[in-house]
Order: sequence, then C-alpha cells, then structure tokens
Amino acid sequence: MATEDSNRRLKVAYQGERGAFSEEAARKLVGPDMEGLPHRTFEEMFEAVSNGQADCAAAPIENSLAGSVHKNYDLLLEHDLTIIGEVNLRIIHNLIALPGVAFSDVRKVYSHPVALAQCERFLRANPQIEAEAAHDTAGSVRVIIEQGRRDEAAIAGARAAEVYSAQIIAEAIEDNQKNYTRFLLLARPERGASIKTAANGAQRKTSIVFRVANRPGALFRAMAAFALRDIDLSKIESRPIEGRPWEYSFYLDLTGDRAEPAVLRALSNLEELAESVRVLGSYPSADTFDS
Amino acid sequence: MATEDSNRRLKVAYQGERGAFSEEAARKLVGPDMEGLPHRTFEEMFEAVSNGQADCAAAPIENSLAGSVHKNYDLLLEHDLTIIGEVNLRIIHNLIALPGVAFSDVRKVYSHPVALAQCERFLRANPQIEAEAAHDTAGSVRVIIEQGRRDEAAIAGARAAEVYSAQIIAEAIEDNQKNYTRFLLLARPERGASIKTAANGAQRKTSIVFRVANRPGALFRAMAAFALRDIDLSKIESRPIEGRPWEYSFYLDLTGDRAEPAVLRALSNLEELAESVRVLGSYPSADTFDS
Repeated sequence: MATEDSNRRLKVAYQGERGAFSEEAARKLVGPDMEGLPHRTFEEMFEAVSNGQADCAAAPIENSLAGSVHKNYDLLLEHDLTIIGEVNLRIIHNLIALPGVAFSDVRKVYSHPVALAQCERFLRANPQIEAEAAHDTAGSVRVIIEQGRRDEAAIAGARAAEVYSAQIIAEAIEDNQKNYTRFLLLARPERGASIKTAANGAQRKTSIVFRVANRPGALFRAMAAFALRDIDLSKIESRPIEGRPWEYSFYLDLTGDRAEPAVLRALSNLEELAESVRVLGSYPSADTFDS
Repeated sequence: MATEDSNRRLKVAYQGERGAFSEEAARKLVGPDMEGLPHRTFEEMFEAVSNGQADCAAAPIENSLAGSVHKNYDLLLEHDLTIIGEVNLRIIHNLIALPGVAFSDVRKVYSHPVALAQCERFLRANPQIEAEAAHDTAGSVRVIIEQGRRDEAAIAGARAAEVYSAQIIAEAIEDNQKNYTRFLLLARPERGASIKTAANGAQRKTSIVFRVANRPGALFRAMAAFALRDIDLSKIESRPIEGRPWEYSFYLDLTGDRAEPAVLRALSNLEELAESVRVLGSYPSADTFDS
C-alpha cells in the first residue's frame, strides 16, 4: 500500500499567476498532476520551498535572448536548496480572448511590456490593436476574462488560455521563435531524492558555483581540473562580486553526476584551487518543450 | 579654426524615451552636451548608427541582477560596429510627480513592471499607492505630467524628472542598491576613433566573441592563449549556438588594448585554435556613476 506521502500530489511553487510560463515549466518538470503554488516574487517562492510549504519550485535561470537570471542564482546561494531537474521551454506567445471573440473585434491588447516587445512585428502589422502594458502575461488573460470585454485581448502562453477558459485567436505571434527559457527544479536536499521528475534526459549534469583568487590565470587553473579529466562544460559564466572589484564568482555546468569518480576528483581538485566551491546539484539534462 | 564636424554636437542613439536610464548613460559616456536620439527598439538604435543617422549608440549589455543582454550581443554580431567606451550606471528609482504634489496626495504610481518589482518594499510599505504597469519608466513620467494628474506619480530615474520638469518626491526607493547596468558606446569603425568619450578609466579593455569546436577542453585551450601571457579576463560567458547542440559562443573581456603586443599575440594564437574570432573593440575601462 502506498503511503499517504507518495499518494498526494506534489506541491510546486512558481513565480507568477496561474497560467504563467513558469507553471507550464513546472508541469513539464514533474508532470501535469501537480498542485501549483503561485507566488508574487522569487523570494516568496524560495521561501515556500525552504519552509516546507512547497515540495519544490520551478525557477527560471536563463533565457536565450535575455541571459542568466542572476537574481535566482543569488537566491540559490542564500537558500539551502538543491537542483533536481531542468527543462527548456520555448516561449510561444498567443493572442487570447473571450470565447466567441473574432480577431477583427479586438481593439486593445494587454500584456507584460517584454511580451509586447517580443510581438512587435505582429503589433505593427495590426495597427487597429492598441498595446497596453500590464503586470504579467497570464494575469492579463485573467483580467480580460473577468471583465468580460469583447473588444480586448491579452498576449500570453497557451496554458493561460486553458486555465482561464479563454480562446486562442492567433497562435505563435512572437517575432523570434528561438526564445527559450531554462527552468531549474529546486528542492530541499533531504526531500530532493524522493521527488520523481518527468525528465527523460539520458545524460546527468552538475551545476556548481565557485570563487577563485584574483590572480591572472586563476580561472584557467580551476578549469584545468575539468579539462584534464575530459569533463565537458556546458555553461560557464563569470559574475563580478559586489564590493570586491576584479573578483568574480563563476557559474559552471558540467556533464556527469557529482558521484562519478572523475567528477568527484575534479571537484576535490577544484576545492584546492578555489576560495569556495558549492555544488548546486546533479540532475538529468534538459528536455525541450513548446510552451 | 575647428571644422564644422568637430563643432556640432554628437548624435547619440539610445533605446527608450527621453529621460530613460539609457539617455543618462549616453550623457555619462560622451558628456552632457550631446544630442540624444531616442529609439523604440534596439534594432532601430543599431540601424541608426549603421546608416549614419547617429554618430554612436549607448547600449545596455549587462545588469548586475538580470544578467547579460544577449539581444544586444546578437545585434553587435549582425552589425559592423565597434565598442569605443563603457560605463556602469547605478539604477536609482525615484517617485516622481508634478511640482507641488505632496507624497500624501499620491494614490497611483505608474512604471515598467521590472521597476515596480524593484521597488516592492516601498510599495508594500505604502499600500495607499496602487501600482500600475506601463511601457517604460521615463514614459510614465511624461504621461503623468502631460495629463496634469495631481494624485498620480511615476517611478523613474532622476534624469526623467529633469527632462519633463517634474519633481522627485521620494528618492532611491529601490529595494536593492546594488543594481548596476553596464552600457557600451558603439560607433562605426571608421567613425569611432574621432569620437571623444568622457571616460577616465585608466586601463584599456578589449571585448571579443569566439567559437571553438565541440571537443572537451577546447575552451580550456582557447583560454590558455590568455593565461600563458598573464592577460587578465574580466568577463567570460558561454552561450549555446542555436540549432547546434553542445556548441557555444564565448564572450570574453580582457585587460589590455588589442594593439598591445601580448594581446595581439594572444588573439593570433586564439585564431589558430578557434573556429571564429571577432574583436568587438578596445576601449577605456568603465567609470561607475549614479543615475
């Protein structure tokens, strides 16, 4: 007989309203039969996992157009959470309205300014539709549905149309179809191992953050720990350390699990060379999905 | 006698409305006696410099909370422009209203959702003020001034208050004071040398982009070109290449001018090892200013 714990649905925290791209990422990460816990801010989302309110969180960590979300790297360092999965979600924007509304009825469209900017070609080709800024994408769908406006629409992901029983009247209206956001699945270390993710990624990956002393070649020596063991790096990024000019933290993703002998040796080698090393987690490499 | 060309004011393109943080960065980069050319999009801003409408452009390239602006790296690769300067601007948000409006009069505040999110503590402490999303920060100031509303305010940089003759009624209301954006000054290669920047930075820097073959250790060998010559790296960032899984471009900033012998040799060494190398420019290292 299954225990109560394995029977209940996973509680997954995310930032944004119901129907947000982050909610869709959460569903891809753990499967659709989950309980989503929307949060207003990233801080509140991390807090919900740390204090046990949520089992895990789906946190955006980088976007192919906008770069790394440093804020979430910072929060990862402040909280004792571990990465247990990742997913790449293609950001597809849709024009969404009340059921029965025709494209020609729409005079105004609401969305987050970043989403509006990403649909600029569509908006320029349809000057009869006025663009209005809103706090977020999914929230714009909620508002036009709640207010019952038949001359207004919102730009958001397909999941928002589903959640608010709205209708997609123009699909994939974004300018650039190569717009991907990578989300990490985060859990408390003691809880992480028992969470089943929906990942198929055959390869294991490990994410680390480290600091090296401010000497020319210090990073080069640190990287030797991996290069000399033929460990592939899939991400490297430097970030200046506040208040310590010319000193940097490095984010590194590498192929292999932290328990594999070569990775284990490389990490122990890195610890000799670096001022600090933190392993953020080992997890299956990403699947890529449309939103 | 000075030529007409050296007498006329520099035309500096930027993205955003008059009074935007980008305009302030432009003023710090070339001095306040410039002619700003506001553009709606980054594409239009790059185009204005490429086609000679503008002498140069001030482009945000990374933010200490949000990461690199990949979009502008992409546009740099698409256009034949060179980096001739850089500046770090601290992003300071202010509550701005019509002259004579008191803090207690304000019931609504407009700004870009990212700016609103960065002032969350202030907004939470002042629940009598309702936050409304808008397309951008400086534009919100323009709108409340144009409409003459005495119960509304906007969140934007100090430059916006100056430009629209508005009044700052609460200063530096952002949650995190360590919010810096780095801007690059870009020009056509043949025009770049004759543009005088306001920079004091004693040190020269060089920015490059390169690709290496997909082999473990390829990046390590590429970095050896610099490490073996004691050339300090101030930024390294990998970026996946679209449609070529496991292949990456690297952005690198290094200390020294491209004309210095050690840098010259390192770059020629890198060209042997890399599939492609592009030098984006050599320029004086950044000064840091408050916005």
